[in-house]
Amino acid sequence: MRKGIAFVLSAPSGAGKSTLIALLRKEFPALSYSISCTTRAPREGEVDGRDYHFLDHDTFLIRRDQNYFAEWAEVHGNFYGTPLAPCRAMQEKGLDLLFDIDVQGAAQLKLTMPEAHFVFILPPSLGELERRLRTRGTDTEEAILQRMQNARAELDESRWYDAIIVNDNLEKAYDELRATYLTATLAPALNPDLVKRIRGGL
Amino acid sequence: MRKGIAFVLSAPSGAGKSTLIALLRKEFPALSYSISCTTRAPREGEVDGRDYHFLDHDTFLIRRDQNYFAEWAEVHGNFYGTPLAPCRAMQEKGLDLLFDIDVQGAAQLKLTMPEAHFVFILPPSLGELERRLRTRGTDTEEAILQRMQNARAELDESRWYDAIIVNDNLEKAYDELRATYLTATLAPALNPDLVKRIRGGL
Repeated sequence: MRKGIAFVLSAPSGAGKSTLIALLRKEFPALSYSISCTTRAPREGEVDGRDYHFLDHDTFLIRRDQNYFAEWAEVHGNFYGTPLAPCRAMQEKGLDLLFDIDVQGAAQLKLTMPEAHFVFILPPSLGELERRLRTRGTDTEEAILQRMQNARAELDESRWYDAIIVNDNLEKAYDELRATYLTATLAPALNPDLVKRIRGGL
Repeated sequence: MRKGIAFVLSAPSGAGKSTLIALLRKEFPALSYSISCTTRAPREGEVDGRDYHFLDHDTFLIRRDQNYFAEWAEVHGNFYGTPLAPCRAMQEKGLDLLFDIDVQGAAQLKLTMPEAHFVFILPPSLGELERRLRTRGTDTEEAILQRMQNARAELDESRWYDAIIVNDNLEKAYDELRATYLTATLAPALNPDLVKRIRGGL
């Protein structure tokens, strides 16, 4: 049985990442999210250990300083982090992990999970991105300007990703996304017994 | 416009590589073979510069010693080699190059074209490989034993390839092969102006 991979996706807001991830998880239901730790309070219906591992502030910071997290971030005063050891355990069990994460988080994963596969989804142009953000109508003018500013800053980070997918046409972009996922699963190191099995299967 | 890639395929005889390559070239007609040099005499209908570059023995050896070839081999007293500079020129023009090559040739390409993508196609088992070789009925018993011996020796080389495809089911194997090819075309370095274009497209 092969080991699981870490598959990291980043994209500027409005590039179509959520739609592409939904298609990918529909075709490959075994592709799982890792469970993050957070210091924010559980919301109605959230279960500790299923939705998040809920930690108090001090425990989070101690673990952070012990390099317990593959990546972490502070958002609006709350901390969020991906625990590394459980990810490794899931991968050893053959589970593929999906990280839907911004470039700052991905940059941390590049150091803590160097064998992960990094895919960046881009809009065909910044003009088209702005048009999409305005068309979906969910953001204020201020939020749109902020998202465009973030997108401009994030574009340059795409250079160190393994693959760049330009989402001009959803069908083509999805074909490329599933290709990068499938390809990542074919690395020899994921399947160290494969040659032995082929050799033995006489 | 993006640069072309070098896509290298190896497989033991009988693993189904030719069928898979035919499917790949049908879907991606722009994927081209480079033109090799050889010291063997042209056959009926072969055109110099189209089928091969026909070289005399001394010229071949001089060029070989000047590292003119990305890889070369001697087969039944004739020399064959892939000239590196024309490959680079084709890639700069955006042409993707296909190398259908044994592990010895691929191992040379790993040094001379380190950014190439290396894919190994394997049969589900050596027993199944032998069954396929016998079923196709094109080889003598001696040739079959030789091919099986080669296959056993080549299996271990698969460890340094980027991807291993087990051809148990043709449709699945082809889906994986096209995935490795598509993924290879998405590397940021192939498209250094992409971010500039996306940025400029306001």
